Amino acid sequence: MAMSTLMIEARHGITDEIREVARAEGIDADIIRRRVAAGRIVIPHNSIHNPRLVGIGEELRVKINANIGTSPDHIDINEELEKVKIADKYGADTIMDLSIGGNLDEIRRKILAEAKMPVGTVPVYQAGIDSARKGTAIVDMSEDYLFKVIEKHARDGVDFMTVHCGVTYDTVKRMKKHPRTLGVVSRGGAFLIAWMLHNDAENPLYKNFDYLLEIAREYDFTLSLGDGLRPGAIADATDYAQLSELFRISELVRRAREAGVQAMVEGPGHVPLHMIETNVRLEKSVCDGAPFYVLGPVVTDIGAGYDHITAAIGGALAAYYGADFLCYVTPAEHLALPTVEDVKIGVIAAKIAAHSADVARGKGVDIELEMARARRDLDWKKMFSLLIDEEKARMYRAKRAPTWEDTCSMCGEHCAIKIVKRYLYGEGD
Amino acid sequence: MAMSTLMIEARHGITDEIREVARAEGIDADIIRRRVAAGRIVIPHNSIHNPRLVGIGEELRVKINANIGTSPDHIDINEELEKVKIADKYGADTIMDLSIGGNLDEIRRKILAEAKMPVGTVPVYQAGIDSARKGTAIVDMSEDYLFKVIEKHARDGVDFMTVHCGVTYDTVKRMKKHPRTLGVVSRGGAFLIAWMLHNDAENPLYKNFDYLLEIAREYDFTLSLGDGLRPGAIADATDYAQLSELFRISELVRRAREAGVQAMVEGPGHVPLHMIETNVRLEKSVCDGAPFYVLGPVVTDIGAGYDHITAAIGGALAAYYGADFLCYVTPAEHLALPTVEDVKIGVIAAKIAAHSADVARGKGVDIELEMARARRDLDWKKMFSLLIDEEKARMYRAKRAPTWEDTCSMCGEHCAIKIVKRYLYGEGD
Repeated sequence: MAMSTLMIEARHGITDEIREVARAEGIDADIIRRRVAAGRIVIPHNSIHNPRLVGIGEELRVKINANIGTSPDHIDINEELEKVKIADKYGADTIMDLSIGGNLDEIRRKILAEAKMPVGTVPVYQAGIDSARKGTAIVDMSEDYLFKVIEKHARDGVDFMTVHCGVTYDTVKRMKKHPRTLGVVSRGGAFLIAWMLHNDAENPLYKNFDYLLEIAREYDFTLSLGDGLRPGAIADATDYAQLSELFRISELVRRAREAGVQAMVEGPGHVPLHMIETNVRLEKSVCDGAPFYVLGPVVTDIGAGYDHITAAIGGALAAYYGADFLCYVTPAEHLALPTVEDVKIGVIAAKIAAHSADVARGKGVDIELEMARARRDLDWKKMFSLLIDEEKARMYRAKRAPTWEDTCSMCGEHCAIKIVKRYLYGEGD
Repeated sequence: MAMSTLMIEARHGITDEIREVARAEGIDADIIRRRVAAGRIVIPHNSIHNPRLVGIGEELRVKINANIGTSPDHIDINEELEKVKIADKYGADTIMDLSIGGNLDEIRRKILAEAKMPVGTVPVYQAGIDSARKGTAIVDMSEDYLFKVIEKHARDGVDFMTVHCGVTYDTVKRMKKHPRTLGVVSRGGAFLIAWMLHNDAENPLYKNFDYLLEIAREYDFTLSLGDGLRPGAIADATDYAQLSELFRISELVRRAREAGVQAMVEGPGHVPLHMIETNVRLEKSVCDGAPFYVLGPVVTDIGAGYDHITAAIGGALAAYYGADFLCYVTPAEHLALPTVEDVKIGVIAAKIAAHSADVARGKGVDIELEMARARRDLDWKKMFSLLIDEEKARMYRAKRAPTWEDTCSMCGEHCAIKIVKRYLYGEGD
């Protein structure tokens, strides 16, 4: 239990965590140090869990998160642990346990034991659900209990926690007068809105933000300032409720920095293509460069079943404009709890989005050059080794195997690359 | 065999074709007429085939094309006809028959008979392959035979043809001196480059462009000015070879317009995110607003197996910046000839990209609003009916069925929408 924090230490010198992130990113350690100290880069890391070190923020490679967890309808701890493994295999930088079904303490602890990467949670789920299980309702959750759950998660080693501190009672009252098309789709946001209205009281995470900072400082976990009012539909994108929460969050970012607590900011959600740049620039401006963690965003609502694609489009663009951290979306989103296979597809789609943005921002260009050379050489072994999902590509090629070993079954003997190598560059047969 | 053309007729008045496109797009017919007359909108339509009328170009809804066709490694006409059906079912606006294996005349004619949408072909494939089959090589193809094949396709009713007229001998000689990383990946481009180098002669499609225009005018098919030098790798994007072809094409667009022949311009290919806007604006500027038909573009080369996603990212952005027509990419791209299932996935991904761009450009917003309302009402029947792929979404929901019928198995009883409707808006139980 360090009463200092990584952020405070960064103000005085380069720590081991900073050194490792600097090495992984190929960036000078003192640049990383200054940005961690300023709150423009976070390294979510609870020493009780001691995860892999992942830097998220300004000018770093874009990172991706995979959400896993049970629901009341489907509880299978082993399946969740499989999701951790497959997310890790395909390149998820972090995972979040969003479980709301079964023995929540047990599930979280097993996931923390399994996961080598930073693990995030949303404590208000457990606080609300435990209240409901005690025979009262979610809205009967006591403020004290909510903070006890936060502390329990911290003691278990959770590296970052989503806390919907920016959903204030004032905004909720305004939303009541001026309804949105769809309403609210954030579970945590919904819990807190119901709680405020039922108890006629301010959001405990907002009201007691200093107490939250004390706990965060004690365990040195990172705050992920949740977007409880994120739009849940293209029709509600970038509306007053969303922005009002963002502005409250921008104040909390500054208070977290003053307390030496790492904080990132969560963003939408459902955003049409033409509003993505605005959303990113707005967050970066009002939150003074705090790391931006976006969920998707999905760019149309008619793609359910393929929302890993709608989110890859939005995520790639958001990351290109400066979002630092992409929460994946699986094909099951808006329809059902994802399976292990859905998690795999979601991670790969998010990885594609993140990497595409990295390439456009001058990172990850080397691997593109290597791939171009491997394709020129028709070196399939090399091509496969560079792919995000080598197995699927091998399967595709095997399913429709080519007659000419160096080509593929798309063109066969009429391979453009072969023809041009022979006639233009005088290589080959 | 009309010696007039739609473009020429459009200069004098509103035709039935123009009226129908205007109705489908909800745009005044005289605006469509003026743009068709100016060459800023094309309506690919060979009266021998008489396909569905699809407008492509300035301020119209973004259209998508599905490539189908056999290869030397896999020849199954029935499978190709299944691809036509599934492409139509999921919203492909046009298809292209890129067959290079089997009886090419028979395949093309059966596809034309099956397809209700405009059909495109690439005649140089058949011209080259027929030469190879006669015991000579692709490079022995006679100029005369190439134009005979073009005329045969026109007589069969082909609505638009890709002709790589902009690959000039001068550019090829420069490419020989200054090689690209990957080279050339366009089959038609490769055939013509080999032909030029072997025969030490200019590209016949460039040299005899006036003759090509005569044939196009006689049958009134649309030219798709192919990008034989499109980059085949991120490492080669927006290079001299690509732009040099674009500049030649821009001259040919003007000559086509003078002849009253509809023409669109094909574009890359492999383009990193930060170059997409430039590519679109460049084409629109130098080609004076000619419809832009992009292949993908894919935004990274390490996604093979998922190139429907890398292309959906690039296609959405290209269309948002003004590309009019997206050629789909399937998950099999760069690996194998696509199956019927691959075609389905490719069409859906391209549809998502096109629709996302439409929404961002103020079209297709109504369906987004309807979906937001259906979600607020937890009206699953309505939600499913608005989706691009209703069946897959129903399958997902059924596979992990919820206990509470109005929710899904992601949140179950803790459905944010239900909680907020009850507490914030006083609806429900």
